[in-house]
Amino acid sequence: MIAPAISTMPLRRDPDAVAAVLRTLAARFGNRLVTSQAVREQHANTITWIENQPPDAVVFARSVEDVQAVVRLCAEHRVPVIPFGTGTSLEGHVNAPLGGVSIDLRDMNKVLAVHAEDLDCVVQPGVTRKALNQHLRDQGVFFPIDPGADASLGGMAATRCSGTNAVRYGTMKDNVLALKVVTASGELMTTARRAKKSSAGYDLTRLMVGSEGTLGVIVELTLKLAGIPEAISGGVCPFPSVEACCQAAIATIQSGIPVARIELLDALQVRAVNLHSKLGLRETPMLFLEFHGTEAGVAEQSERFGEIAAELGGGPFEWTTRAEDRTRLWEARHNAALANFALRPGSSMIATDVCVPISRLAQCVAETQRDIADSDLVAPIVGHVGDGNFHLTLLVNMSDPAEVARARQFNERLIERALALDGTCTGEHGVGQGKMKYLQAEHGAVAIEAMRAVKRALDPLDIMNPGKIVALS
Amino acid sequence: MIAPAISTMPLRRDPDAVAAVLRTLAARFGNRLVTSQAVREQHANTITWIENQPPDAVVFARSVEDVQAVVRLCAEHRVPVIPFGTGTSLEGHVNAPLGGVSIDLRDMNKVLAVHAEDLDCVVQPGVTRKALNQHLRDQGVFFPIDPGADASLGGMAATRCSGTNAVRYGTMKDNVLALKVVTASGELMTTARRAKKSSAGYDLTRLMVGSEGTLGVIVELTLKLAGIPEAISGGVCPFPSVEACCQAAIATIQSGIPVARIELLDALQVRAVNLHSKLGLRETPMLFLEFHGTEAGVAEQSERFGEIAAELGGGPFEWTTRAEDRTRLWEARHNAALANFALRPGSSMIATDVCVPISRLAQCVAETQRDIADSDLVAPIVGHVGDGNFHLTLLVNMSDPAEVARARQFNERLIERALALDGTCTGEHGVGQGKMKYLQAEHGAVAIEAMRAVKRALDPLDIMNPGKIVALS
Repeated sequence: MIAPAISTMPLRRDPDAVAAVLRTLAARFGNRLVTSQAVREQHANTITWIENQPPDAVVFARSVEDVQAVVRLCAEHRVPVIPFGTGTSLEGHVNAPLGGVSIDLRDMNKVLAVHAEDLDCVVQPGVTRKALNQHLRDQGVFFPIDPGADASLGGMAATRCSGTNAVRYGTMKDNVLALKVVTASGELMTTARRAKKSSAGYDLTRLMVGSEGTLGVIVELTLKLAGIPEAISGGVCPFPSVEACCQAAIATIQSGIPVARIELLDALQVRAVNLHSKLGLRETPMLFLEFHGTEAGVAEQSERFGEIAAELGGGPFEWTTRAEDRTRLWEARHNAALANFALRPGSSMIATDVCVPISRLAQCVAETQRDIADSDLVAPIVGHVGDGNFHLTLLVNMSDPAEVARARQFNERLIERALALDGTCTGEHGVGQGKMKYLQAEHGAVAIEAMRAVKRALDPLDIMNPGKIVALS
Repeated sequence: MIAPAISTMPLRRDPDAVAAVLRTLAARFGNRLVTSQAVREQHANTITWIENQPPDAVVFARSVEDVQAVVRLCAEHRVPVIPFGTGTSLEGHVNAPLGGVSIDLRDMNKVLAVHAEDLDCVVQPGVTRKALNQHLRDQGVFFPIDPGADASLGGMAATRCSGTNAVRYGTMKDNVLALKVVTASGELMTTARRAKKSSAGYDLTRLMVGSEGTLGVIVELTLKLAGIPEAISGGVCPFPSVEACCQAAIATIQSGIPVARIELLDALQVRAVNLHSKLGLRETPMLFLEFHGTEAGVAEQSERFGEIAAELGGGPFEWTTRAEDRTRLWEARHNAALANFALRPGSSMIATDVCVPISRLAQCVAETQRDIADSDLVAPIVGHVGDGNFHLTLLVNMSDPAEVARARQFNERLIERALALDGTCTGEHGVGQGKMKYLQAEHGAVAIEAMRAVKRALDPLDIMNPGKIVALS
């Protein structure tokens, strides 16, 4: 059972406790326990400017029982546990500031069941989204959440991630039906049944989605699936300004066009994509779009969007239902982050994201572009504009301390700007370590204290991914 | 701040504490504090066989500060607080088994803001769904959740309700962007911003949605809105069997038809509707349907559904886009519960609901119909079959103890059947008092203990609607 006692002692590194844990883990896991520097550092990979803080060891789990054994042992010795999927998180989620044991879930990679009639499936946490869709390819269904990276589904749930399809299909919050979670005391908890909806008690599923491993380790997911649409159309549409792109997105959503993807690229991002993917696009702000439906439906949606674009001075909207042409476009969009290296070879990429009400998006993006220019930074913008969510990739010369400082100050202003516009400090990347300091400004002290109370209630020893979201120590 | 101490003393009725609370409330609220037997009983209205357990007093709150004052006073004296919307809940949610103060929120009924561009609005908790849609009528947007009753939006969020439109628009879980909640210590908590999505910390919004007043009092809601569709088509379609209805629903969902409503009525329910609404429908299992989209879109959806129905031996599917004809049909559907009185005048209506994976729905409904017959009960069925959710209205002669016992035993078997099919004991009515005893069978001991831990963390004195969902005392 979950221990009712609340520890008042802050969690501290205890070398003796770690040594005791490692001895027991070595006996159970053999060569599935790895303590080499390289593997430990790889498991603290942050893809940001947050420093690498490696765990004391990595265990490659193969079963729920493996995870339970590690968590129970760590609870006994009060040593941190850090769940690890593919390491593609962007805010230091898998760092180990207090050391501890990283549980790598990549080998728990089985699709356990597909219920096509119910539009759901049951998977282990190490299954990646591409592997799942490969598994589903002949069954008329697909898993729609697409954050770009081929992330693990456990990690995607843990960070409440979303991506390009969210405007139509929702985020992980909307697409997880139920979870199995190893609790902080090593017990196995089931959060819900497979019914599509339920009013049976507190929504433990949604409490775990986005909890970033701080309340337990996700060891099984029941996910919603979508039917593969009969037809898909897509294309790109140039606009005279970022504002016009945003106005087109608003008008599209408001007029009820069920757009599946509506992605903003600013002119600099288009240039990067051109350099990388040789697309030859006009280097002006642009929307990438996709529509899902029947043959007649996607044609109607595409035509209507074209009319909206024309009214706002954009276009022409060139669209196609040919799969190979669409694939080329979306590969270019997905490679946008990678493409940015072409803009400034040798620089490091710092990713950040904010989300605002869509009516504030044009203002927020325009002010941000001016800020980038004023700050003498290179930072192309891509946005999931149907949701009011956009990303910046800061291309920073990390050996120039003044530039690093400017970039960090810029990021602070970006978040302040989003919050001032009734937005959030992160639309989909999560809190990790990088966004912790903004949470109180976003939610207020009462909500943060409620989050701490929940954390203490479900992880009284503070061993589950400590130092992320809200710090108890 | 939320008190960190966990009380180990069970909550008990304390007449001195209640008297002290009532004295202070009388001084502050004057004639907005009511202690008459009739008003107290009305505020414990259960619409079920659960006995009426009136609160000690009712306060009619007009502001957030009013609610905070009541909760603070009740916390000081450890007296229960029961939030009250319209009293249309069905599982004893507003009963006061330990007495206490019912906070009636009907006078907090202002629409505070409508952001049509962002498809959201901000409302006080006493606004009902019909009042909100009346307010929105000229703005091209509407609030789609429709549980039948003209419930308050605060109550709808508190019970995680849904209804006929959920198959397309989701439940309250999906349509609440943010809440303001008076916590158990009387502080005001904001759960989220107005951004359409966020990964910024634990999902306090979803934790509060469905918490039935046991974690705090909802005093403000930011809700998603939907664009009013350009065209709506609807109609009824007869089928030879309940199974054929369910198969048609599965095929409709699976083929990606974005049906807005797909409602099953069994033959007995059709008879009741005919008696009440004089519709002259064939008394056979039937689907009521509605499609939202463009003119061309709803025609295409309607035609496709008609083909599916014909393949399954159903039809003809007669559909129309004429508003007056659709309205007549849906009024009849909404009056289905009321119509049931015509089947057995003088009986009491006991409502219950379960939800199963849609692939199990036909089996669950068919077995349930046999059980009704074997139990010598009268119980028409309506179902939100796109979600796998269905309701029974048990028409019970409450003066016949043997019949009451048969009805209760039947309800137990219904829930066991739903759970055995991987379903839930309540799809949308909530737990209240009536479904508490099934929660552990549904979720398991570890999850129930996690719910208790969350309850203790956020309501350490156990004053918020005690004796509902999970009992601490």
